[in-house]
Amino acid sequence: MKAEIIAVGSELLTPVRVDTNSLYLTQKLNQAGFEVHLKSVVGDSPDDIEALLRAALQRSRLIVLCGGLGPTEDDLTRTATARALERAVSIDERILEGLRRRFARRGYRMAKINERQAEVIEGAEILENTVGTAPGMWIEGKACLVLLPGPPRELKAVFEAHVMQRACRLGGGRRLEKRSLSLQGLPESEVDARIAPMYKKHASIQTTILAAKGVISVWLQQWLAPGEGSADLDALWSEIRAELGSMVFAAGDESLEEVVGKMLRDLGRTLAVAESCTSGLIGAAVTRVPGSSDYFLGGVQCYSNAVKTGLCGVPAALLEQHGAVSAETAEALARGIRAATGSSVGLSVTGIAGPGGGSDPKPVGLVFFGIADEERCTHERRIFPGDRDTIRDLATTYALGALRRFLMAGENRS
Amino acid sequence: MKAEIIAVGSELLTPVRVDTNSLYLTQKLNQAGFEVHLKSVVGDSPDDIEALLRAALQRSRLIVLCGGLGPTEDDLTRTATARALERAVSIDERILEGLRRRFARRGYRMAKINERQAEVIEGAEILENTVGTAPGMWIEGKACLVLLPGPPRELKAVFEAHVMQRACRLGGGRRLEKRSLSLQGLPESEVDARIAPMYKKHASIQTTILAAKGVISVWLQQWLAPGEGSADLDALWSEIRAELGSMVFAAGDESLEEVVGKMLRDLGRTLAVAESCTSGLIGAAVTRVPGSSDYFLGGVQCYSNAVKTGLCGVPAALLEQHGAVSAETAEALARGIRAATGSSVGLSVTGIAGPGGGSDPKPVGLVFFGIADEERCTHERRIFPGDRDTIRDLATTYALGALRRFLMAGENRS
Repeated sequence: MKAEIIAVGSELLTPVRVDTNSLYLTQKLNQAGFEVHLKSVVGDSPDDIEALLRAALQRSRLIVLCGGLGPTEDDLTRTATARALERAVSIDERILEGLRRRFARRGYRMAKINERQAEVIEGAEILENTVGTAPGMWIEGKACLVLLPGPPRELKAVFEAHVMQRACRLGGGRRLEKRSLSLQGLPESEVDARIAPMYKKHASIQTTILAAKGVISVWLQQWLAPGEGSADLDALWSEIRAELGSMVFAAGDESLEEVVGKMLRDLGRTLAVAESCTSGLIGAAVTRVPGSSDYFLGGVQCYSNAVKTGLCGVPAALLEQHGAVSAETAEALARGIRAATGSSVGLSVTGIAGPGGGSDPKPVGLVFFGIADEERCTHERRIFPGDRDTIRDLATTYALGALRRFLMAGENRS
Repeated sequence: MKAEIIAVGSELLTPVRVDTNSLYLTQKLNQAGFEVHLKSVVGDSPDDIEALLRAALQRSRLIVLCGGLGPTEDDLTRTATARALERAVSIDERILEGLRRRFARRGYRMAKINERQAEVIEGAEILENTVGTAPGMWIEGKACLVLLPGPPRELKAVFEAHVMQRACRLGGGRRLEKRSLSLQGLPESEVDARIAPMYKKHASIQTTILAAKGVISVWLQQWLAPGEGSADLDALWSEIRAELGSMVFAAGDESLEEVVGKMLRDLGRTLAVAESCTSGLIGAAVTRVPGSSDYFLGGVQCYSNAVKTGLCGVPAALLEQHGAVSAETAEALARGIRAATGSSVGLSVTGIAGPGGGSDPKPVGLVFFGIADEERCTHERRIFPGDRDTIRDLATTYALGALRRFLMAGENRS
């Protein structure tokens, strides 16, 4: 069951915009039993749209067109689709009335140009759009065709309300089953080397390894026929999970900050951070999680040495002797931020994000991490590759991973 | 001069990966005089690739194919392209030798499967890849065809070294000229309403308004013939800039944190931040700029009230009386962080990012900003729409914009 997605809009052919609707649509179409075998982006050109559609009608069972349903002269999807299908277009009085009411409610008279949003292709079912003006359309045939509005909020609303059930019916009960897990602390290549012997035994399971900001995700997916079970998929997932062991922090989509947050909450502990080279990234990540005020007290962006001394209590003599980027300073910061905030755990990062400031003994990318609680104080040293942004992102992820291991070790001991 | 881009790879048809190579390629092709009128993503299916290419050869002057040139069984671009062009494929001994040497340098013997990376399509010019194994190809004809490796680093290296000059020659001196500006503090719809009467007079100039995290960018672009000047484009840009006045913070791509950083450096002032609901986002943004240690001292993530009092010197009685989310607390935080760090300017943010914690008088999205220097202490109050992430991002941008206006007002006065 092949599906294809066509995004319409000249703005999607500029160097500054990327089509993201297709990611949402792909996920949904997979769930409904369709494989997306082709995606296209086409400008506001009726000839290009028509030609693309004529080709799509020959090769795909389901075609999803998004964008180009608005009121302006650029919005040509309806006309081009009707031409490709060789069907007529007419004004639907009920839609027109709805549009007029919508404008009236806001105290406007509807401009003439909006009438084209009431155009319906012969034989189409109208898919009501409750969050915008342009309705979608579902057109049955040898190939089924769906027209959806381009703004993501409207596209999702119309898809959920009207398209998903129709697509599932068309898909006939096939489904794409997925499993995933996330880990931190191993390079992508090592993960692949360790799990390739496992996934290569399963030709029907597609395995993808993704790396983003120091987090590695392993995705497994398999097409299942109606009634077919997922035993193979579950077995492979368990085998991979066992191989990667305690590096795995989530058996799904959970983020590292969510996992660490849950651990802190379950352990009844509080956290404060002292961030030099990351200067806020760790605090921002931890507080992305709603309810993080239950365990996160706050922190200091100790960018200058004066702030390291003044607010985090690092002795000036220690900074003088070992330098700001050192194991000693990292540990002193972790202890100091604990003391300054009264948190049970203190986490610190100090390093050289570049591009300047590196030297032979302390190169760009060198980062020290400190973690302290009432009993222990540890540090780790890492050298990260990449540019300033990359080093800061990798250090942020590494800090959260190190904190997770610190909390696990504490748990195991007690 | 029409170009189209075809990205090959089944992983680009999953819900987790998006093709970003085409953004880079579009920018380069535009500079070379080509309009990108179509982009496609196709899986590792030789039939789909061949069919797509046959259609592309009929409609585009230049076709850029990326991905699918690697050594594995999934890498089918070479074969499919040869079939679409009805040309033969043969092994190039020089490439083969280079591949063998590359493996030998790393102490490996080359596996047989890698030989397919030495396959060359009849009549193709080989484009050397100095950062990876698979070379690119340039194939002249009624339509010109370029084959590029998929990994972004390799794609860019091959394009810069070998494709750009060929594309410019083919483009014949046409070029897409661009202008842009960025502003903060006005909604997208108001920007459009104010500048639409200006840009609508210029049919040959394409105007795009983008909004991201509270920053609005206006992009103008116009195709110019060889030798044609950009007077119209420059005039429209100046007219728009004058209309939007002091809201415009950059006459190009500069970020708000870069602009504010330059102002601080030029004024010889230093900054410290006290962040409650943004908890690090402002400090992280300011320090994204290399060299920001010249003017940024650091800050406090004053997430809990205890940290607001303990590290930022906000009197407990003031917090008790007015609440953490109030104009009084915002001002006290701005003054307090100045005093705690010795900075010349203090900037604070305190608000309710949600989803919980809102009330009738203080709804989710309510944020107060405080700014203090040696002479002045001001605050602003805003209610932002959206979810937790959106509110925090909008508050971060707004804080930097407010700081910019504060510094400008100080400058004008002195």
